[in-house]
Amino acid sequence: MKVNRVHKNERIGTIIKVLTENPQKIYTLNQFGDMFQCAKSTLSEDIDIIKSLFERFELGEIETVAGAAGGVLYKPVMAKEQIKDFCIELCGNINQTDRIIPGGYIYLNDILYSPDVSYNIGRALGSFFQNQTFDYIVTIETKGIPIGLMTARVLNKPLVVIRKEGKLTDGTAIHMNYLSGSSKRIQTMSLAKRAIPKGSKVIFIDDFMKAGGTARGVIDLMKEFEAEVVGVGVLMATKEPEEKLIEEYVNLLILEKVDEEKKEVFVQSYL
Amino acid sequence: MKVNRVHKNERIGTIIKVLTENPQKIYTLNQFGDMFQCAKSTLSEDIDIIKSLFERFELGEIETVAGAAGGVLYKPVMAKEQIKDFCIELCGNINQTDRIIPGGYIYLNDILYSPDVSYNIGRALGSFFQNQTFDYIVTIETKGIPIGLMTARVLNKPLVVIRKEGKLTDGTAIHMNYLSGSSKRIQTMSLAKRAIPKGSKVIFIDDFMKAGGTARGVIDLMKEFEAEVVGVGVLMATKEPEEKLIEEYVNLLILEKVDEEKKEVFVQSYL
Repeated sequence: MKVNRVHKNERIGTIIKVLTENPQKIYTLNQFGDMFQCAKSTLSEDIDIIKSLFERFELGEIETVAGAAGGVLYKPVMAKEQIKDFCIELCGNINQTDRIIPGGYIYLNDILYSPDVSYNIGRALGSFFQNQTFDYIVTIETKGIPIGLMTARVLNKPLVVIRKEGKLTDGTAIHMNYLSGSSKRIQTMSLAKRAIPKGSKVIFIDDFMKAGGTARGVIDLMKEFEAEVVGVGVLMATKEPEEKLIEEYVNLLILEKVDEEKKEVFVQSYL
Repeated sequence: MKVNRVHKNERIGTIIKVLTENPQKIYTLNQFGDMFQCAKSTLSEDIDIIKSLFERFELGEIETVAGAAGGVLYKPVMAKEQIKDFCIELCGNINQTDRIIPGGYIYLNDILYSPDVSYNIGRALGSFFQNQTFDYIVTIETKGIPIGLMTARVLNKPLVVIRKEGKLTDGTAIHMNYLSGSSKRIQTMSLAKRAIPKGSKVIFIDDFMKAGGTARGVIDLMKEFEAEVVGVGVLMATKEPEEKLIEEYVNLLILEKVDEEKKEVFVQSYL
């Protein structure tokens, strides 16, 4: 695109638009230089301004990467305080008696499938893993998908979805039986063989963890792919059992109690 | 947040950041006025600059809404040419013989679950429905979810996911049997009763359409909720059968042919 002289306001605005809409993607000064027909030194000044305004208004991080493959990128991370505020607000929305479902479950579909809320859950969970090296976000159908996808978006990694049954459209797949941690029922996981190359590192994201049987199963399934789970993040973990089947995980919320008889539900922010 | 005088660059940059990250959400001049401690007239000028730079660099639409509930919002829509370019690129990625799966299916998981690609599919599909009045985006598990969620994000509406089996965590649900359009097999759809209030208007988004049996089923299921499907958008529709079970729909791609024997797959952009 050939353009007439572009004003500083316009350069800054356009760079912010592009970076915000493409989280964690590195843009080189040359790319912006071509776009605006201006010198790198001018762009460096622009980026300094952008950096400091993101700090000042707590808009996330702008990072510059030095070297030949260098450039600038946007990390939509949240500070601890922001995560906490978001989680407290979320708890206010969850702790409503009309969310209690026969069987002692909590209805969360409207929250998980809200594009706004799931994006912010992705930002919050992603903030814990942003400095880790890994190749894929892995989740399991169905309710893990929205927050898995948004975490993947925030960290700019591909999402891989494990199915609970094999599908024709997966082609050759690896199936695995496992025991759910709490009910000790036999469950199945299935994943297309081509979904994850050998030697990959993955982070497992899910909506809910009770005993950790599903996370344990995913760790085992990844071994079949010669891949490694290097992190586990869930929206909500139950307080009981305190001992989970996996050792390390991150959770945003703790489910302290849900009592169908007394119509009580109590979820807290972990932070 | 109390701030010292904020420079024009910074105001423009921050407004763009906030609008870009919150598509279709109206922000009032008062909100920005509080943030920057400046006059509305100054902000109006800023927004005029933002508007024209979004036009100049084809970054989507900035719309101002007049009146008491007025303000400014970002519509991440794509122009027809941009949709076409994106679809052609996508076809290049899809038309690869190693995507052909036994049974004559095409492996698309890596595309559908790429946060980048699904976001752009959401932008493209969303562009067709942006001027329509509706309350929910509806999709069906599993592969409809990522593009359903991204379309919902782009249009800032809640997503509702129909299950293929009833789940305990849905509470009271409406189940419906229907015939798949092509294979004439009995399938089931299930949706929590509280998911959609009476009188709602919805847009159905899915990854794939052959005869249209699923879309037909969703239209019927919505009648049980006293809700109405006012639009249908799919990523890919097959060329055959040309007569679908529903009359109006939008598709980005056409599947012309997939031949397992000859190892041929041919998908085209609809536009």
